[in-house]
Amino acid sequence: MNYPKTILNLIESFKKLPGIGEKTAERLALAALNLDEEDIEIFSSSLKNGKTKIKKCEKCGSLTEETYCNICEDPKRDNSTLCVVEECKNVIQFEKVGIFKGKYHVLGALISPLDGINPENINLNSLIKRIEDESIAEIILAIKPSIEGETTALYIRKMLEGKDIKITKIAHGIPMGADIDYIDPLTLEIAMEDRTTIS
Amino acid sequence: MNYPKTILNLIESFKKLPGIGEKTAERLALAALNLDEEDIEIFSSSLKNGKTKIKKCEKCGSLTEETYCNICEDPKRDNSTLCVVEECKNVIQFEKVGIFKGKYHVLGALISPLDGINPENINLNSLIKRIEDESIAEIILAIKPSIEGETTALYIRKMLEGKDIKITKIAHGIPMGADIDYIDPLTLEIAMEDRTTIS
Repeated sequence: MNYPKTILNLIESFKKLPGIGEKTAERLALAALNLDEEDIEIFSSSLKNGKTKIKKCEKCGSLTEETYCNICEDPKRDNSTLCVVEECKNVIQFEKVGIFKGKYHVLGALISPLDGINPENINLNSLIKRIEDESIAEIILAIKPSIEGETTALYIRKMLEGKDIKITKIAHGIPMGADIDYIDPLTLEIAMEDRTTIS
Repeated sequence: MNYPKTILNLIESFKKLPGIGEKTAERLALAALNLDEEDIEIFSSSLKNGKTKIKKCEKCGSLTEETYCNICEDPKRDNSTLCVVEECKNVIQFEKVGIFKGKYHVLGALISPLDGINPENINLNSLIKRIEDESIAEIILAIKPSIEGETTALYIRKMLEGKDIKITKIAHGIPMGADIDYIDPLTLEIAMEDRTTIS
C-alpha cells in the first residue's frame, strides 16, 4: 500500500524541482493538501500561466508577460548604460538595491562548452543588435567570477573589440561585513589586486 | 520593477508551504517555469485533485480517494491488531517495511492542549467505535516519544481501561547502526530501562 495516486503525482511533481528529494517532496505534497481552496487555485493557475504567459523580453531577455519588459519600456531609464547579467533573477536583485538607473541585458546562461553551452546558445546576438541600434556608451558586466563567467566576459570583450564602448565589470572583493578569516584565498588575492586608494 | 505578476504569485504559493522561505520559493518558482508542459499539467491538476479527491478513510483516518482506504478494505489483513499512528505518512513508512499485517488507525495529530489540540480534536472517537465494532485484541501505539506523544498514549490507555484489550507500544532505544557516542541521554536512559535478556 502506498499513497493514493493523486498524492503520488504531487510528490513526483515536487521532485522534478531542483534540490527537492523524496522526503521533502512528500512533506511538501502533504502540506499542499492542507492549503485552502483559494491558495490552491492561485498555485495551480500560476503554474499553468507560468508556462503560457511568461516569455522572454524581446529586447533584453528578461522574463515578462508582454513583448517587452517594464524596464525596456521605461522611458525614464538611462539608455546609455547596459548591465549584462546571467539570469532574470539578477535583474531583480539589482532592482531591489535600486541604484542602477540604466537598462539590463540577460544572457540566460554563461558560456560553458563542457555543458554544451556555446556563445551562440546565449543571448549575445541580441546584445550586438542593441549595441548597433541603441546609443550605448557603457556595458557593465555583472557576471559571477567563475570559469564560465570569466570565459563569457572575455568573449564579450573580444566581440566588442574596436567598438567605441566602455566595458566595465562590477567589483569583486571582500563582502561588506564579512570576517576576513573566512574569505577564500582567491577572493583575498583579487581584493589585494583591485585595491583602491583612499587618501 | 519586480517579477511579472504570474511569477510573484507562484513565489507566494511556494512560500505558503512549510520550510520554504523567500529565496527557496524564488528558486522553485523559476525552476517550475522550465518544467515541460505535461509535467505542469500533472502538477497543477494534482494540486487541485488533492483538494477535491483526497479524503480521510472513514474507518482509520488515513488518506484515500475512496470512502475506505486500501488497507481497511483488504480482507487479507489481520483485523485483530491495530497500529495507532499520528499521521498518514507513518502508515506509508510501516507499509514500506512490510512486516505489519494488521490494520492502522491514524489520529491526525497528538494531544497538545497548548496548541489547542484536545482529545476531542483527534481521531479518538472512531478508535473507540472500532474497538466496539471490530474484534480487536491488541493495540500497538506507534507514536513519537515526545511530551505530546506520551500524553496521547496515556490518554488512550486511560480511555481503554477495563476493556479486554492488550495495549503495547513500539520499542524506543538506540537506532540500528547508530554510534552510541551521538545518542542523547534520554534515549540512553530508556535503552537501559527497556533492555532485553539475550541469554
